Amino acid sequence: MNPERLLSSIRVVLCRPSHPGNIGAAARAMKTMGLSELYLVAPKHFPAAEADARAAGADDLLRRAVVVEALDAALAGCVFALALSARRRDLGPPSALPRESVARLLAEAEQGPVALVFGNETTGLDNDEVSRCQALTAIPADPAFSSLNLGSAVQLLCYECRMTAFAGQQPADWTATPSASPLATAEENEALLAHLQTVMTATGFYNPAQPGRLLPRLRRLFNRARLERSEINILRGILAATEKGTGHGRGNDK
Amino acid sequence: MNPERLLSSIRVVLCRPSHPGNIGAAARAMKTMGLSELYLVAPKHFPAAEADARAAGADDLLRRAVVVEALDAALAGCVFALALSARRRDLGPPSALPRESVARLLAEAEQGPVALVFGNETTGLDNDEVSRCQALTAIPADPAFSSLNLGSAVQLLCYECRMTAFAGQQPADWTATPSASPLATAEENEALLAHLQTVMTATGFYNPAQPGRLLPRLRRLFNRARLERSEINILRGILAATEKGTGHGRGNDK
Repeated sequence: MNPERLLSSIRVVLCRPSHPGNIGAAARAMKTMGLSELYLVAPKHFPAAEADARAAGADDLLRRAVVVEALDAALAGCVFALALSARRRDLGPPSALPRESVARLLAEAEQGPVALVFGNETTGLDNDEVSRCQALTAIPADPAFSSLNLGSAVQLLCYECRMTAFAGQQPADWTATPSASPLATAEENEALLAHLQTVMTATGFYNPAQPGRLLPRLRRLFNRARLERSEINILRGILAATEKGTGHGRGNDK
Repeated sequence: MNPERLLSSIRVVLCRPSHPGNIGAAARAMKTMGLSELYLVAPKHFPAAEADARAAGADDLLRRAVVVEALDAALAGCVFALALSARRRDLGPPSALPRESVARLLAEAEQGPVALVFGNETTGLDNDEVSRCQALTAIPADPAFSSLNLGSAVQLLCYECRMTAFAGQQPADWTATPSASPLATAEENEALLAHLQTVMTATGFYNPAQPGRLLPRLRRLFNRARLERSEINILRGILAATEKGTGHGRGNDK
């Protein structure tokens, strides 16, 4: 299945959300990552103006959201459900980190609809809800302060879904910025160093009789910078302007 | 460095945030992942009740937040800054996915304080702000709806920081040779650029009335080179020697 279709087959199920703002934030988070199927189990307030406001452009997901009374109805037709829970459960399903859990979720999604299940902001999922899911995942938060905002938790899981679905394929947009101009050749780099050496000698900063480590250090710096041709031209322009000022100018250098 | 200390050395810098709720959400997101250093550049409203409300227990980070007027001040002492930006920039630093960008951020954090830099909710980072950073990262959102909430973006990057810090994974690329001398701080880099600008202006190479793209290009070059402190000293020594030669010397600069 192609990544877009795979992502659009994942349901996000929010169980008993208290704050409509979080429903809107979840919709926005989903949409940024290419997910679109939102299910709400017994939301306290929905629809709500605050949900629309926080959706910030993802209100189409809110309008299409499926509102049900119990988790069973939200999971109808699903072949696999992954529950987010900070707590381990007696007799609960095994828990894993989001990255590996999501890899499984996407593998299962090849077989049919799957669900990512989130609990109430304060109380999380109850044991009955967790028992409807085949796997648990926990976000590796600081044990001293582990309470993520619901919208942030949805964002994070949806992000892992998208990263896994595209499997490291970097859309063309993010490949490294091409150089603004071609890289300088070895000779051009050498000519710059020679020019710099001339200026440094003329100003007395460099004494060829006692060279020390100055030239090797400058060479190391320029090698690391991987200069472009146009940058060499700028640097040599600066040097040439300096030479005119000191009266050491070499007429043909500009 | 142990993971906790590494995480606590990462600054989160929010540039010109409009909505205090997002400042609170960012503080909460940071604290869940073990980050604690929050810097605010020219926030529209701060402190604010809405920030406290959304922080939901991370109000200690808000109380300790450092409020400054410009990004330079927030980056003082930093050896590396990673900017979040959805857009590619002319002459901007190279961009990568969060996971690999964060691996580099943590590798750099072994050398000194580092920063994660976020822009305004609507306009993002401006080019001047981006030019202060050595690397860009972009969250791989759906191109059709790519606008993440600021708090969610902070959550996601902090999560990647924690995952990487505790996994100890550092791609071979970034576990680079330790620098021969400590890396230069943001102020040292700025002082070099200011010094260079003085010399270029004195020699007539640079005309402040018609600046063109010269300074952004030099900034890009130096950012790419990741200058060490001793290299800055060499370069400023060269400049100072030049100034003496041209009679534009600043007596106290050597």
